[in-house]
Parts: sequence; C-alpha cells; structure tokens
Amino acid sequence: MTEPKLHFSRSEYDARLARTRAEMERRGLDLLIVTDPSNMNWLTGYDGWSFYVHQCVIVGPDGPPVWFGRGQDGNGARRTCWMGEAGIIGYPDHYVQSTERHPMDYLSAQLTDQGLGRGRIGVEMDNYWFTAAAFASLQRNLPDARFEDATALVNWQRAVKSEAELTYMRQAGRIVERMQQRIFDKVEPGIRKCDLVAEIYDASLRYDADLGYGGDYAAIVPLLPSGPDAGAPHLTWDDQPMKSGEGTFFEVAGVVHHYHCPLSRTVFLGKPTQTFLDAETAVLEGMEAGLEVAKAGNTCEDIAHAFFRVLKRHGIEKDNRTGYPIGLSYPPDWGERTMSLRPGDKTVLEENMTFHFMTGLWMDDWGFEITESIRIGANGPECLSNVPRKLVVKDG
Amino acid sequence: MTEPKLHFSRSEYDARLARTRAEMERRGLDLLIVTDPSNMNWLTGYDGWSFYVHQCVIVGPDGPPVWFGRGQDGNGARRTCWMGEAGIIGYPDHYVQSTERHPMDYLSAQLTDQGLGRGRIGVEMDNYWFTAAAFASLQRNLPDARFEDATALVNWQRAVKSEAELTYMRQAGRIVERMQQRIFDKVEPGIRKCDLVAEIYDASLRYDADLGYGGDYAAIVPLLPSGPDAGAPHLTWDDQPMKSGEGTFFEVAGVVHHYHCPLSRTVFLGKPTQTFLDAETAVLEGMEAGLEVAKAGNTCEDIAHAFFRVLKRHGIEKDNRTGYPIGLSYPPDWGERTMSLRPGDKTVLEENMTFHFMTGLWMDDWGFEITESIRIGANGPECLSNVPRKLVVKDG
Repeated sequence: MTEPKLHFSRSEYDARLARTRAEMERRGLDLLIVTDPSNMNWLTGYDGWSFYVHQCVIVGPDGPPVWFGRGQDGNGARRTCWMGEAGIIGYPDHYVQSTERHPMDYLSAQLTDQGLGRGRIGVEMDNYWFTAAAFASLQRNLPDARFEDATALVNWQRAVKSEAELTYMRQAGRIVERMQQRIFDKVEPGIRKCDLVAEIYDASLRYDADLGYGGDYAAIVPLLPSGPDAGAPHLTWDDQPMKSGEGTFFEVAGVVHHYHCPLSRTVFLGKPTQTFLDAETAVLEGMEAGLEVAKAGNTCEDIAHAFFRVLKRHGIEKDNRTGYPIGLSYPPDWGERTMSLRPGDKTVLEENMTFHFMTGLWMDDWGFEITESIRIGANGPECLSNVPRKLVVKDG
Repeated sequence: MTEPKLHFSRSEYDARLARTRAEMERRGLDLLIVTDPSNMNWLTGYDGWSFYVHQCVIVGPDGPPVWFGRGQDGNGARRTCWMGEAGIIGYPDHYVQSTERHPMDYLSAQLTDQGLGRGRIGVEMDNYWFTAAAFASLQRNLPDARFEDATALVNWQRAVKSEAELTYMRQAGRIVERMQQRIFDKVEPGIRKCDLVAEIYDASLRYDADLGYGGDYAAIVPLLPSGPDAGAPHLTWDDQPMKSGEGTFFEVAGVVHHYHCPLSRTVFLGKPTQTFLDAETAVLEGMEAGLEVAKAGNTCEDIAHAFFRVLKRHGIEKDNRTGYPIGLSYPPDWGERTMSLRPGDKTVLEENMTFHFMTGLWMDDWGFEITESIRIGANGPECLSNVPRKLVVKDG
C-alpha cells in the first residue's frame, strides 16, 4: 500500500476530530454523518472529484472517522485519507444513480450491523450533498435513530484557521496576485473573454519556481461580466471581444490544496464614467472603515455596518451581505456557509478567522467589485494578498 | 431592458416545456419544482454560477415557467431567460445561508399566494440542489400539497437531442480534439501536472478563428492521475513532475454553451508495460463490439454486455457501469443521471441520444481510459470527436 499523501500532520487531524467530537457531545449526538466534501477533506484528507455520487464521512463516538463512498473511489480514499483500510467502506456500483436502490440504504445496513444505527444522529440537512432522497433513505432504514440537524456543525469548527492552513491561504494569496497581474497585463479592447479566461487559468495553475508551488482548481470559475452584464453577480464568460467604454469586474481566487484566497478587481476600458469613479471613492473609503473594525472582539455585523455607513453617505444602498468566511472549499462555493458580514450577525470575531470582504455592488446596469481576503488579527486584519486597491483604468 | 442572450430558438424552448408538461400530466403533477441547474437552463435559458444558493424553476399548469432565486441573481435571470420580467421572482438576501429562515419558506409563501401551494407537486428528491432542508421547508409550509418524487423527470426529456443541441456537442467535439492534441504535444517526463493542466485549459477555452468560437467551462475539472494513482478514477492533479515508466489517463471535455463532449485517452511515458499493451488490445476490441450495437432499437445493457464480454475474454472484469448520457451540464457532473450503460438497464436506445461510452479500467495500482462520446444513429453511432483511438506512447 502506498502511503497516503497528506497535507497536514496527523496531530492536526486529531485536533480537528477532537474539536468536532466536543461539539457533537455538546449537542448530544451519538453519530455524525458528514456529506460536505470540504468537511470530509478537513476531517480525513479525502480528496477527489467524486462528490457527484453519494459519499460521506462517519464520525462515531470513538476511533477514526470512516469514509463511505462508491467502491471505485475507495482507491482515492486509500491514497488521500489518513485512517487506513479499516476506515474505508465502498458501496457496489449498481447503487450509483439507480432508481431502485440508494447508497444511503447500503450505509444504513452498515451502520445497523455495527450497532450505530440508533440514537441521535446528526446530518447536514441543508448541504448540497445531502439530498432529500438521502435523508428519506436514512429515515426509512434507521427507524431507531433520531435525526438532528447538524448543518454546518463541522464548518463552524473550521472557522479559526491553524498556522498550517494560513500558510496555504497565504500561498493562495501569492497566486491571486499573479492572476490579477495577468488580467491587468492582458485586458484591452478586442480581447475575447474566453481568451482572457485562458490567461486567468494559466496564471492560477502554473508552477512558480520562485514560490515553489503551482495552483489548484477553485470552487467557483472566474466571474467577469462586463457593462450591463456586471449588474448580475454570477455570470461567467462568452467568446466575444471586450469593448471600450465598459467596466468589468474580475472575481477570481488563487487556490492551494483547496485553500482559497478570492480577490476581485474592476477594470474600466477607456475613460471611466463618473459612476465608476464615484463607486471607487465610496467603496475604497468604506473598505477602510470596515477593515478598521475587522479585529478580534468585534462582531461580523460591525464590519458590515462600518462599510454600509460609508456607502450610504455616498448615496449607495447595498442590500446584500458584504462578506463570508473562506478557507478549504470544493465547488460550488468558496464560502464556508457559517457567518455572514451583514447586519444581525453578532458572531464575535476571533483571531485567525478568515473572510472574503465582499464589497461588491451590483446595480441595474453596472457592477463594481474591489474586495480583500483577510485574516482577523488581535489588533486588525491581515490582507492575504497584496494587489493595488483601485479601479484599474486601461485607456487602450 | 436588454434582450436576453438565448442559445436556442423560442420554439425550441416551447417544445421543451411542452414535452415536460406532457410528462407532468402523465404523472398527474400539478406543479413541478426544478432545482437542477442543467434542467433550469434547458427549460428557461438561465445561466450563472448561482447554484450555491437555493434557486429553482417552477413549471405550473400553464404559462411560461418562473425563475425563483436570490434577489441579486434576478439580473442574471433577466439577461439569460426567455420569460421576461413576469417570470422572475427574487428572494431577499437575508434568506441566504441563514439559520432562521430558508429560501423555500419564501417560495412556499409565493406559491400559496398564487394558489399553487396545493395538489401534487413534483420535486427532484435526489438532486444535489434539493437538500433535505429544502424539502422539509416545503413540507412544513405547504400542508395541502402532496409531494411526488420527480427526480430526473426533466433529465429524461433531455435524452434525445435536437439538431441545435447536436451542433453544440459537435462543436465541443472539435474542442476536445484540440485538448487531446495539446496533451500529446506537451506531455513528457518532467512536465509538472499543474503546467499540463494549464495547457489543457488553454486548449479548452481559446477562441479559434477557423472554428468561429471559444470554449466554456466543464462540469468536471480535468482528471489526470498517473501510475498507481490512476487506480482511483477521480483524483485531480498536483504540482509534481510527470515520470517516465508511468501511464496517465486524461479525462477531459470540450464544452460549448454548457454542452459537453467528454473524451479520455491514456498516455504512457517510456516503454509501455505488457499490462498497458494488453489493456489497449482488450479495450479497443471491446469498444468496437460496443459501438457495433450502439444503435436505435438496441438497449443500454446491450452496449455494456458487448463490451464486458470482450473484456472477460481478455481476463478483465469491469464491475462498474460503462457509460452514461451526456449533453447540457453544470458541475458537479457531466452525466445526465438517467440511463446507465450497465447490465440491467433495458432502456431502448433512440436516435440522437448521446452517451459517453466510458470504457475506463481502474485497477489496484494502474488505470486506463480510452473512451468515445457518441450519438446513437439509426444504423450505428456517430463519434462526436475524432481522436486516434489508441494508447499514446511517448518515449522521451
């Protein structure tokens, strides 16, 4: 057996498991079924693009967690998880996308056999990878279990980053610097969106001899809508040439071992309109105000209030949240789905929490994004990358 | 209002809706809640990387479908859907990833207001984008509704492709030819995996003046495990140099307007081992046998049986399905999740169904993939791309 390739020490995995178990105990859970690929990776090291079939990690009352997935992905688990052969259960392939049998039927039988199919079982009710059908299967097959909503239980344990995690996030910061630089170098009227995206991928992936590493895939593809399309925050790209007289935001992330550093900048081709100049002034001033209060002891909503207050003074109303925690992520989202930087979120900020301070504006017929990924410090934030914070004007 | 950018004619969307309604009627459904982004796009044109928050398309008894999603994504719907303003409902941002309120609570209220919150409502029970919590919200808020499992109801309507869809898939075929060619040109001992992935993305995206189009993102990132790692079908890449004496399979897809043409080839660096030469012989012969029966009137399992029979004669047992339908897809899967090419699937093949004939082998310490994407014809298959079907040997 080849040794698995782990990106963290065994003691770090032990600590993560212990933190998770402490929360399980606090909630009185006997068992936890973890379906989020980011949580699975964080607990076990499991890595692979196999989340399009049902899979999970089981955390019981003691011993290592157990990886459960499609039989043919067992080899992937053997090569990436720390638990060894005993911690891997594969289900037969005729359970895959079958209308007659569900992988969770198979899991239920396994749990019952091991006497784990009863008691209080936590499930990630609102996770992409825990479908209504998966839950129905567990309910049907484990009549002695009582299910509790454990959505984001593990995500919350991930909120404060270890030094080893911060190292990867800072490395990702170097990559996103390279990506934004490439955009500035290449963007000009006439360049086709798809060609610019090729440049962005190139900058996100290539091994850099100075840095000593290359890049990984991001949980979200590059977003780069132009002109009126930029009023929609989640359009991707087409193969049409970029036009003078339009603003385009570039929301991209550098990624190392699935740890993300997202960063957005906005480019205006030609002479920027007053709208964009005003947006730049408001957003940069607002960001300063937000970053000012981004320190341990303050709350999530403090950052939002500080930012929104400045925007309002400039006559801009932002009615969506202005940031979210980041770290280890798989598609479809590089956010951690716990806290939100918005009014009403009174979560107290702790040192080494990490956020994407998403200060984007999406208006009726234009959009603007200048953002920072930050680490919360005792006295203020650390920006995880260093990219000039301004509207980029290219008058070609 | 800008006109939405549609990739199909209005009459094609009308036909899709009619086909979906006919199946709803057959099943006695009053309403259908469609959460799969591929189904949403197929019915309405909606495009955007917004599926990390709850969203859906509602198909009622008459009139155009309705897009329901996060308020800020409404602009995306306005720019990509054919239904116009009346067919777009946005929910307020404080429903996003909230622990107190669920977007489906909001949808339920809307349905109730419109008198649609009762009767038989179809939901995609086993879809990534329909979580256990989403279903619980609907059940809680719509006590007069009876929910029916409509998983893959729309996916099945997508099985037979229109001429316009086939055009995009053939275009995607040209792109995957370019991608595989690039791999052959660049792969050699010493090239780092991440650098090769940058080349693959470049070839998948760039505008080609001869073709007249560029590429889109794929629902799965490139898979390219080497040596013993290739025994695991879903590992992605790292930043290490490729080694002589190892086999690597490259599973990638060309994509145009979200229509996929996947294709795998295997490269051996250095003198191939007998294992790989034998695998090549068995797989190529088996593929011929499978392709022979890939025609209208035969069944899904006919292809699998034909392929497995040859493999068996060569002493190879494949215990997982050997293909799946393809077409329009968003992450995490470029399969359509209806049919499977495996024993037991007696679905009758129809002209213009399209499949990825996934003839991959994943053994204990090696893997091998030579595949084809095909269109089912009246008398035999059309390969959607033209890439030499052989083990690529590069003796560097």
